[in-house]
Amino acid sequence: MSEPKIQDVARLAGVSTSTISNFLNNRAGQMRPDTQLKIQQAIEQLGYRPNNAARQLKTGVASMVGLLVPSLANQFFGSLACAVEAAAARHHCHVMTFSTFRDPDRERAVMADLLAYGVKGIITGSALSDTDHLVAMTSRCPVVAFDIKRTDEGHNRIATISVDNAAATAMAVQHLVSLGHKSLALVTPPPYTLNRQERVRGFQQAVAAAGIIGELVIADSTDAPSDPHGDTRLFELGRSAASRIVEARTKPTAAIAINDMMAIGIGVGLKQLGRQIPRDCSLLGIDDIFFSAAHDPPLTTLRQPIQAMADAAVQRILAPASAPGDELFAPELVVRASTAAPPK
Amino acid sequence: MSEPKIQDVARLAGVSTSTISNFLNNRAGQMRPDTQLKIQQAIEQLGYRPNNAARQLKTGVASMVGLLVPSLANQFFGSLACAVEAAAARHHCHVMTFSTFRDPDRERAVMADLLAYGVKGIITGSALSDTDHLVAMTSRCPVVAFDIKRTDEGHNRIATISVDNAAATAMAVQHLVSLGHKSLALVTPPPYTLNRQERVRGFQQAVAAAGIIGELVIADSTDAPSDPHGDTRLFELGRSAASRIVEARTKPTAAIAINDMMAIGIGVGLKQLGRQIPRDCSLLGIDDIFFSAAHDPPLTTLRQPIQAMADAAVQRILAPASAPGDELFAPELVVRASTAAPPK
Repeated sequence: MSEPKIQDVARLAGVSTSTISNFLNNRAGQMRPDTQLKIQQAIEQLGYRPNNAARQLKTGVASMVGLLVPSLANQFFGSLACAVEAAAARHHCHVMTFSTFRDPDRERAVMADLLAYGVKGIITGSALSDTDHLVAMTSRCPVVAFDIKRTDEGHNRIATISVDNAAATAMAVQHLVSLGHKSLALVTPPPYTLNRQERVRGFQQAVAAAGIIGELVIADSTDAPSDPHGDTRLFELGRSAASRIVEARTKPTAAIAINDMMAIGIGVGLKQLGRQIPRDCSLLGIDDIFFSAAHDPPLTTLRQPIQAMADAAVQRILAPASAPGDELFAPELVVRASTAAPPK
Repeated sequence: MSEPKIQDVARLAGVSTSTISNFLNNRAGQMRPDTQLKIQQAIEQLGYRPNNAARQLKTGVASMVGLLVPSLANQFFGSLACAVEAAAARHHCHVMTFSTFRDPDRERAVMADLLAYGVKGIITGSALSDTDHLVAMTSRCPVVAFDIKRTDEGHNRIATISVDNAAATAMAVQHLVSLGHKSLALVTPPPYTLNRQERVRGFQQAVAAAGIIGELVIADSTDAPSDPHGDTRLFELGRSAASRIVEARTKPTAAIAINDMMAIGIGVGLKQLGRQIPRDCSLLGIDDIFFSAAHDPPLTTLRQPIQAMADAAVQRILAPASAPGDELFAPELVVRASTAAPPK
């Protein structure tokens, strides 16, 4: 027996094919409940399965873009996902978002599935040093990576969108130098990811150029709880790193955190040690996540232009010919109350 | 000319069909670059398009569950998405997450697309009062709604997962009564959503039962900026509502916020008015979002058991026979430093 058709369902239910089509496309709002019931019974009786590919053509199912982020529990990546969704909506395109927890195997599996679902392209925010699995994907669909600055040949086929991470830490140093600071600390987890490596490099170059002291505090406490849902561990690492800032031989009068999440942790840690911000120690983050403005005191930070970056990523996938392969966005210094002149 | 087959690609590239299959499924890691290039050229030359439906059967593309949340920029829903992803991963299932900004039309469009993509079921976190579009969907796939407590017949076909919202505010009231408070304020935006209505009801019943004063402060400032990306507006509404708490004729000595995001806004507003927490006013939220513990002072809150709720939602979709249609989860009182005895 041949596969049942929409016409067979319409005949059995005693309605038109367009009524069936409305039902299948979730436009049953105006439909009488008994009609809906008859259609559902006819579908089940015949074992009718709508042909998705054909339906996509006929009813204009929206295009899809896949988005991979380390963890949606990290508010920065939640905001990034929202910005990509807003950018894609302007192209009548939906975004499927996945947390991949910076696991290349999980990224590989999710990308294969996304291809099977026919996505127009894939955007990734993981910033893993190893990009082989992304490069392999570029022969199948456009791939755009956030937060990778092109550093070697391997990236050539990936389009990259990044804030200028080296400029972010350099601007942080310059802001603190202008306030009179002469000894700074950069607090970071082990810089495995490319964006963190760039931030460390920008810091070291800027303190050298300014002729001041710059201490790198690598926060890698085994005390910090593991964090199956993502990067909130940075908060705990920041909190535990506060004592190392206070006790550092170089007596830093300001701390730059690798991102706002870590800065907020450092802030809690400094307060627990009886230090006031910015009176005893200035504090500065990177990202401008939502809670930075709600921090006490409000956090000075380097803002990433998330919506502009999301627009560029979506543009690159949906209109690759009109978009550059790589774009580097300038961070913006947002001065709030957590930075001030150093203690006398 | 008939549609090219995988065998045609293999012949032209001079490799086996399983090599082509590995390439198509993003398992090219061990493959020589020149082999990958030959395959890609053969695919392009023949205009070969893999049959997605067939590939799903053969290569075991993971099942998908759709998740609709108001906004991923809201950290609570980011954490919820992460918890649903973790729950689904245990069933070798992926989650496609979408922000729908509490827009029923957008929800309708996204759900139709999700069906076309063959999802196993849909989980929604919008808690809209109007659930017609969800009910309509239930004849097509399992639908699980967070934060809707069954209130009428229309919900009968939707499975619901919710924290006991009325119990949350009642527990907040009881905690504050036990500390000696006799006049409380509940601060909420206009309670359009079912979960907010339940929280208001729980508050009003609990203050009546305790024989104390309970003032409802509806925060609906036109000053608060619109918030295209979601619920961060609650922060601004909370901040602007602080003056109404301070000036209220009933002289509340503690404020319960409808959620933590609003509580954090109230906290900033109270500090701007020179009030100390909890010395001048106790403050309490609902949700236990990540930043509540980082708040200064750390925020007392009613925690939603997000992972248990996510597990139940996924269970309901992937093994509906073994899962109850409705589950109500008890909130957990997390006492931190933002609540204390009222001022003398």
